Amino acid sequence: MRCDVVAVGTELLLGQIVDTNSSWIGEQLALAGIDSLRQVKVGDNLDRIVRELGDALDRADAVVVCGGLGPTQDDITRDAIARVMGVDLELDDEVAARIESMFRGRDRRMPMSNFRQAEVPVGATAIADPQPGTAPGLICPVSWPGPDGDPVDKVVYAVPGVPYEMQAIMTGAILPDLRRRAGVDAVIRSRTLRTWGESESGLGERLADRIDALDRIVAEGSPAVTIAFLASGVEGLKVRLTAKAPADADAEAMLVAEEAEVRTVLGDELVFGVDDDTMESVVVDLLRDQGLTLGLAESLTGGLASARVTDVPGASDVLRGAVVSYASDVKFDVLGVEPGPVVSALAAEQMASGARRVLDADVGLSFTGVAGPTGQEGHEPGTVFVGLDLAGEVMSVQLRLPGDRPRVRQFAVISGFGLLRSRLRARAAS
Amino acid sequence: MRCDVVAVGTELLLGQIVDTNSSWIGEQLALAGIDSLRQVKVGDNLDRIVRELGDALDRADAVVVCGGLGPTQDDITRDAIARVMGVDLELDDEVAARIESMFRGRDRRMPMSNFRQAEVPVGATAIADPQPGTAPGLICPVSWPGPDGDPVDKVVYAVPGVPYEMQAIMTGAILPDLRRRAGVDAVIRSRTLRTWGESESGLGERLADRIDALDRIVAEGSPAVTIAFLASGVEGLKVRLTAKAPADADAEAMLVAEEAEVRTVLGDELVFGVDDDTMESVVVDLLRDQGLTLGLAESLTGGLASARVTDVPGASDVLRGAVVSYASDVKFDVLGVEPGPVVSALAAEQMASGARRVLDADVGLSFTGVAGPTGQEGHEPGTVFVGLDLAGEVMSVQLRLPGDRPRVRQFAVISGFGLLRSRLRARAAS
Repeated sequence: MRCDVVAVGTELLLGQIVDTNSSWIGEQLALAGIDSLRQVKVGDNLDRIVRELGDALDRADAVVVCGGLGPTQDDITRDAIARVMGVDLELDDEVAARIESMFRGRDRRMPMSNFRQAEVPVGATAIADPQPGTAPGLICPVSWPGPDGDPVDKVVYAVPGVPYEMQAIMTGAILPDLRRRAGVDAVIRSRTLRTWGESESGLGERLADRIDALDRIVAEGSPAVTIAFLASGVEGLKVRLTAKAPADADAEAMLVAEEAEVRTVLGDELVFGVDDDTMESVVVDLLRDQGLTLGLAESLTGGLASARVTDVPGASDVLRGAVVSYASDVKFDVLGVEPGPVVSALAAEQMASGARRVLDADVGLSFTGVAGPTGQEGHEPGTVFVGLDLAGEVMSVQLRLPGDRPRVRQFAVISGFGLLRSRLRARAAS
Repeated sequence: MRCDVVAVGTELLLGQIVDTNSSWIGEQLALAGIDSLRQVKVGDNLDRIVRELGDALDRADAVVVCGGLGPTQDDITRDAIARVMGVDLELDDEVAARIESMFRGRDRRMPMSNFRQAEVPVGATAIADPQPGTAPGLICPVSWPGPDGDPVDKVVYAVPGVPYEMQAIMTGAILPDLRRRAGVDAVIRSRTLRTWGESESGLGERLADRIDALDRIVAEGSPAVTIAFLASGVEGLKVRLTAKAPADADAEAMLVAEEAEVRTVLGDELVFGVDDDTMESVVVDLLRDQGLTLGLAESLTGGLASARVTDVPGASDVLRGAVVSYASDVKFDVLGVEPGPVVSALAAEQMASGARRVLDADVGLSFTGVAGPTGQEGHEPGTVFVGLDLAGEVMSVQLRLPGDRPRVRQFAVISGFGLLRSRLRARAAS
């Protein structure tokens, strides 16, 4: 069963509104085990909407059209569906009554134009909006030419563009109707492994054999997990595992088994988390497990590292605070760094120890370097030193980071947390 | 000239990533005076990508295809374009050299598969990525059957799916190329006034007369600036002025005149900046103008305020640094706050003075309060105190901020900078 999506609205094409509805619908269809292979945005133009509905019906068994059900002149989705069905619009008395009573309930006069919303294509069924909106959803059966030209029974669903109304109608009526038509017993579940320290192509090479093996399993007609790579900027790379199975438990079991396979290939040093984990949330958990508190000293990162840690719920369990020593003499006077070059391994180490002392923390982590756009102390932009004082054990690393000022800053932060994660894992292992 | 958009990526259809790229591209095309009437999302499947490119070329003069240019097996946009052009892929030595040097610059081994990214369809031109990414954009001329069947010269542009790379390539190479092909003579320019402290409906009421006047001018057939309101979350509201004119100078003159009109209506206290100005960049400029340095003390904001200031190039002219006093006793021991309630006006004022003293700054600005999800010291989430010590003049304000934890934190920061801006403007006026 394939169900594609057509989102209607000129404002979507102009970028005035981001089309999050199609993404939500696509996710729900996938979780319902229904393929959605194509999603289209089209403006408020009758001919173009009709053409897109036709193209979608040529490809898919069902189409969800989202938006254009309002009361105004440019809400023409109903007309387009009627055209595709080859029928007229007729007033649905029940819907009309519901809309009138809704307005009475709010003591508001109902503009006559609202009756437009009670018009449905002949043969279509209006879906009562479970939430107080005035635009009902529609289930519109269509007889459409199949590959061999013979008519095939297909369906067009119409939902309003207001997200909470659309979601209520999808969940309450359309997804169940789709599953019934599809006789679906398959569910799709996915899990994302977060990685840090390897390029996308490097991950691809490491996992090439495993991906080939999975392809062979599928070729033999057996179900298998699929693996996809998602870049997420400076946040590292995601390896997404997706499983299709008769039931939740089966899909879950496939994901558990495949995660183990992939972790064996990549190793737990490279895989730092799963799904919603971030490098900082993982570090907060490691610190909490080891009963350690953290103090930060930031120069080029200017508070980013601290802001990211404090974005983690429960960060107060481990974070003492931070000193943003943006001016050099704040490094000297507050953190006790010896006067001298501040873009250096020594300064990074003394900043880390200073943060540990001033903030009375077990662990001090520091960032100093050149964010750019111009160089500093003879160093190129992207030159960064991360300092770490882990309960008295002091070290530092030098990084050469690519990108513009904001990227260098973000890259420095996640690199520093990556270093701290490695040291904390080693500490736990020893 | 019509340019449609094809976004490639199974993760877009599954709703794992929301396709914000198409929205951004659609907005830029509109501002360039080029129609974008249809935007499609399709998965990582060669046949389907080829079919979508064909359908788009049937309708439009140009197509931007976004995503699928990476180095892995599922990055097949290059192959799809070559298929549509009816040509092979060939290695572009210049691109290959650039990719190699990028890896050398980062001291990382380059996997051979990265050379995939240096393959371009014969006859296509690679666009040097102005930012250090490894996927170049492509300009691919296509001869495509027109309505009467005779071949028409059209073009397919390929851009990476990573937003900052895509935006750099669109702005630097593709939009200019499109305008040249379109022979667009009218230029469209826009200017955005940033406002803080008034609701969208409030702005609408204040500017209603002016908007009516502009509508009348257009009705009389004369060119006029159009005014649109754009909400930007906690960052306040934007008033966008758009002018269409024969030449840059004319459009610029229209915008200058209209900005003056709008500022007269709204006032400069409400309009804090223009275009890329942020509340913090405006504050940095005011501090620099008045020869003042800034020190921050942050509790619930956890470094966000400092991170935002240091994101402003030249922030080092005025920012001394910050103390993130996340643990209460860091407030007492480092900032000299008297032990007692830390979510209070007194604590906020003592934090501000403490930051001013410890960081040796002229101005101290502090943030303390409850970000949530749970309450603290009997205060609801969203209760925030901002403290200000402006060269010895100490004050504080209490805020009741809406939203979840991240929104409360961001809201607190911009509110605090808004307060500082007002005080600095008053100081300059006195």
